[in-house]
Amino acid sequence: MENEVVLLDLWASMFGMRVRIALAEKGIKYEYIEQDIWNKSDLLLQMNPVHKKVPVLIHKGKPICESLIAVQYIDEVWNDRSPLLPSDPYQKSQARFWADYVDKKIYDLAKKVWARKGEEQEAGKKEFIEALQLLEAELGDKPFFGGDKLGFVDISLVTFYSWFYAVETIGNFSIESECPKFISWAKRCLQKESVANTLPNSERVYEFLLDAKKRLGIE
Amino acid sequence: MENEVVLLDLWASMFGMRVRIALAEKGIKYEYIEQDIWNKSDLLLQMNPVHKKVPVLIHKGKPICESLIAVQYIDEVWNDRSPLLPSDPYQKSQARFWADYVDKKIYDLAKKVWARKGEEQEAGKKEFIEALQLLEAELGDKPFFGGDKLGFVDISLVTFYSWFYAVETIGNFSIESECPKFISWAKRCLQKESVANTLPNSERVYEFLLDAKKRLGIE
Repeated sequence: MENEVVLLDLWASMFGMRVRIALAEKGIKYEYIEQDIWNKSDLLLQMNPVHKKVPVLIHKGKPICESLIAVQYIDEVWNDRSPLLPSDPYQKSQARFWADYVDKKIYDLAKKVWARKGEEQEAGKKEFIEALQLLEAELGDKPFFGGDKLGFVDISLVTFYSWFYAVETIGNFSIESECPKFISWAKRCLQKESVANTLPNSERVYEFLLDAKKRLGIE
Repeated sequence: MENEVVLLDLWASMFGMRVRIALAEKGIKYEYIEQDIWNKSDLLLQMNPVHKKVPVLIHKGKPICESLIAVQYIDEVWNDRSPLLPSDPYQKSQARFWADYVDKKIYDLAKKVWARKGEEQEAGKKEFIEALQLLEAELGDKPFFGGDKLGFVDISLVTFYSWFYAVETIGNFSIESECPKFISWAKRCLQKESVANTLPNSERVYEFLLDAKKRLGIE
């Protein structure tokens, strides 16, 4: 059964990394097929005709698109080990709420920093820090958003940490000085093998982002 | 237990309607507290400090925000009747995918029609129709997205139907002539008491939207 798991992904995708961490937490072996997002493969277009994006988890030949949906799918199919979502419906709703918050805010705010300039970029930096501080407040004194263990919100969020160096360098600001608790939490996540083995090198992400800006025509 | 359910909502909110249909499908009695979105109540700000939006489902004093998360919560807590999501993990992932598609596309595309003018509005009409046609293709020959019964995707999507008259009138186009199967499906949903009792009068939505445009400074 585990041989029938395939992941179409891009190494630098913070969305794809979520699925990779979830698969690692569950100990599921899978075939990884790197995608060229600048020249999309027939397989990607066939498996995700609606959004045409990575990651796509393929299980027994059937695609599951959208990273948070794929992580929930993994948690539901392999429910005999390393639960990622809480079983209590209220706790589960709160985990979904914060993962959804990450999806609605963090990518766009980070992009406002790396893809804009001047006043817009300054506003992006401020809003990005505010969003991280809101997440810090939600974390509170817990080691992880999931409590004592890495969970759904941690997985949804920690993958963005691999882009921080690039965002900080382009934006010329320090996230750690504004959000030290957030950085401590991210480093705590990185002590997990599933996270450490998944998050790419920060300098490599920076090079990727500089290249992406050029391809997108962003100065 | 059911007396402890409260909904903060706005009658015209297609997101709020989702929660109302789900509660009706489950036969749950609740206290409905209409909100003034132009003058937000302390209760709303306290219960949804992050997004400050309706709907907020409050169960035993604790808030659940974001409509799709609230509908899933309702389905999980009252799991002894009228299941809304399929139990099979793959089918569940696909229901989540399409509800997520509705969230990512339909509101924004409808707004592109009612809040823009000229070329932008024309582009909005085209994209809106294309999105509905994609949903028609996904529906195929099934009576409901949920199969033989109203389910999660149906509930997520049918509430937008109450805005169609307003969007068509403002955009001066016909959705039915482009998407007859979609309209047939919506009318089929309206045969359900839970939907018929929830969706507001189309002319009243139109008046609401004209008023909203004025308040938002949209000509």
